[in-house]
Amino acid sequence: MYTQIFGQMKKQLAQMDSWLMTAATYADAKKFDVDVFMTQRLAPDQFALARQVQIACDAAKLGAARITGKEAPSHADSEQTIAELRERIAATLTYLEGLTAADFGDVGERTVTQSRWEGKVMSTHDYLLEHVMPNFYFHSVHVYAILRHNGVGLGKRDYLGTLSKRDA
Amino acid sequence: MYTQIFGQMKKQLAQMDSWLMTAATYADAKKFDVDVFMTQRLAPDQFALARQVQIACDAAKLGAARITGKEAPSHADSEQTIAELRERIAATLTYLEGLTAADFGDVGERTVTQSRWEGKVMSTHDYLLEHVMPNFYFHSVHVYAILRHNGVGLGKRDYLGTLSKRDA
Repeated sequence: MYTQIFGQMKKQLAQMDSWLMTAATYADAKKFDVDVFMTQRLAPDQFALARQVQIACDAAKLGAARITGKEAPSHADSEQTIAELRERIAATLTYLEGLTAADFGDVGERTVTQSRWEGKVMSTHDYLLEHVMPNFYFHSVHVYAILRHNGVGLGKRDYLGTLSKRDA
Repeated sequence: MYTQIFGQMKKQLAQMDSWLMTAATYADAKKFDVDVFMTQRLAPDQFALARQVQIACDAAKLGAARITGKEAPSHADSEQTIAELRERIAATLTYLEGLTAADFGDVGERTVTQSRWEGKVMSTHDYLLEHVMPNFYFHSVHVYAILRHNGVGLGKRDYLGTLSKRDA
């Protein structure tokens, strides 16, 4: 299950990358700087697009690192441009691609903790389903929503990507 | 896995219900009709809040029905008020509560199809991870985002709900 759920997050990160490309095409057509999107947000006390992309990447990256125990690359959250956000997504995908089924092999028995949990732990299973995935989708859907709110032409197919349909 | 993933969707639907309650409290405090939220949206060509709630409910309900083969109750999408949307969420939860681990017992071998897939099928597994879950989160996060965009005071804890933390 872990491999498949992280596989789905990889797919979703690649879709996010495609939304940023679509945003760049839109900006070109409308003759504005695509990096204007970096600071767009849906509410004054919500994170802007750049931070939403960073956190979506980290939800997948740190989730995988905490579950597998395989150290993740550090990212400084210093991206200033859409192009740099796309590099961040690519670096996250490279890390996730490097994980194997064996890395997830015995994680079902393990627990996960974070410093702000004051000594409490979660099972890896609960952590994945209750924290990593909802958080990942929260921030990736906000990226999509910020772009749509600002006129970028995205639809459900751009969100879901290609489905594994086959002949009956 | 199916039981746990649908368990997580039930939890998330209950959180969505709490957001609507918070929206009602906010509307009362600001002295406007909470049902104004029904038609709010983030882009003119995106669904408004009411439809986002309906589709989030249906993503869970129809996903479970297609995967288990257990018929789901029909809903007319005729909700006119926030109170009626809350009933819709409750009805969806009642249906999902009625499913047992046994209902999901042998689904791993089955396939799922929809009329618009032109005869193609997906494995239940792929369908759940690539379609049901991303779609469910897409619409539920849009509900949250529409409310936040319109001033309702929600935060990440309202989104995630209580985590299954325990002593180490």
